[in-house]
Amino acid sequence: MANPFNLVESCIRDVSMGENVTIVSPCNIYECQIGSNSFIGPFTEIQKGVVIGERCKIQSHSFICSLVQIGHDCFIGHGVMFVNDLFANGGPVNDATKWKATNIADHVSIGSNATILPVQICSHVVIGAGAVVSKDITEPGVYAGNPAIKLR
Amino acid sequence: MANPFNLVESCIRDVSMGENVTIVSPCNIYECQIGSNSFIGPFTEIQKGVVIGERCKIQSHSFICSLVQIGHDCFIGHGVMFVNDLFANGGPVNDATKWKATNIADHVSIGSNATILPVQICSHVVIGAGAVVSKDITEPGVYAGNPAIKLR
Amino acid sequence: MANPFNLVESCIRDVSMGENVTIVSPCNIYECQIGSNSFIGPFTEIQKGVVIGERCKIQSHSFICSLVQIGHDCFIGHGVMFVNDLFANGGPVNDATKWKATNIADHVSIGSNATILPVQICSHVVIGAGAVVSKDITEPGVYAGNPAIKLR
Repeated sequence: MANPFNLVESCIRDVSMGENVTIVSPCNIYECQIGSNSFIGPFTEIQKGVVIGERCKIQSHSFICSLVQIGHDCFIGHGVMFVNDLFANGGPVNDATKWKATNIADHVSIGSNATILPVQICSHVVIGAGAVVSKDITEPGVYAGNPAIKLR
Repeated sequence: MANPFNLVESCIRDVSMGENVTIVSPCNIYECQIGSNSFIGPFTEIQKGVVIGERCKIQSHSFICSLVQIGHDCFIGHGVMFVNDLFANGGPVNDATKWKATNIADHVSIGSNATILPVQICSHVVIGAGAVVSKDITEPGVYAGNPAIKLR
Repeated sequence: MANPFNLVESCIRDVSMGENVTIVSPCNIYECQIGSNSFIGPFTEIQKGVVIGERCKIQSHSFICSLVQIGHDCFIGHGVMFVNDLFANGGPVNDATKWKATNIADHVSIGSNATILPVQICSHVVIGAGAVVSKDITEPGVYAGNPAIKLR
């Protein structure tokens, strides 16, 4: 091994929790808010500034980036990835003030392996497994595909 | 931190194993069956009631939910997600008797990042990487895309 | 539990590192090279023989398989999966000499949940989140979809 390296351990730190939150480790969750009676599965990463409402389930392998806000009674499936950087200039933007926000309202269910670009999603929406959501969703319904379109 | 929370550690417990099973930790595997000479990679979750046959490889980052049965000599790629709840009433169904089963026969290979909805897949099928399988597959062949269709 | 099993722990071993590399554990990284000032997120697996250049970010939940070479200043998003085995004969190929290589040049950014089959990607390319890249990319630009096509 040519050089030493900086080893950082995943952790749960500086999280503002409601009552009766359950978290399955290992996970990497920091400087965010999680509402009462929510559940967070293993192998998840939740970044600084994220807000998650009450009675949500965030399933294993999901990644929730900064600038994502999730309402109450939401279900985020396994392997769901949120995005806040659209690589607008051809690559990652280091200036966090240029990242884009995502707002998920209440009673939204997102299927496993879905990818959520920076969008607004209204209440009572279902996103199919494997979908890629690249535009705002303003009507309740079921959306799926890449890019996601309304099914019904 | 406003409140204490329930911390659950990922584990390997109550698994009925055949001979010579290899598992790479950390993973979260419970109340399921794994056949002889099978391999389970790291960062996997395998839920209660899952049955995995002999000589299978379940690669890293995969999630196998309750009601999935996998035959012998199957390969489940990295980041493959199985689904048992179709959110039929617009959100997660808490009544497990209404979840749907998936049966994977023998010699089935599923590419990485694929998503498998509740389906039947016959023997000697290849699912391409990144595919979303939403319908039963009853003929051997190669299937890919979102939704997956037969390529050859 | 019917039988004992082989428990292997994820680790960081036999990695040739440049200076000032940061790694967030847990991860499973072995027998590979990581260039100076690169960052590796948690829940990643990087296999034997992989070469990663300088100033790269490999985000959480990504899997980088043997025969992948990544240049300098690249960004690999969360949940990105690389593939080296095309299941050419209807299933996994055990003979590693028949696996296929992937070469990623410099300044390439790959969005979260993308899947990268064995391809060549030239410099200054952006791959959209959730894309499935199945063909070589020889012109700078933005590519997305399943299969990925050039957007602009």
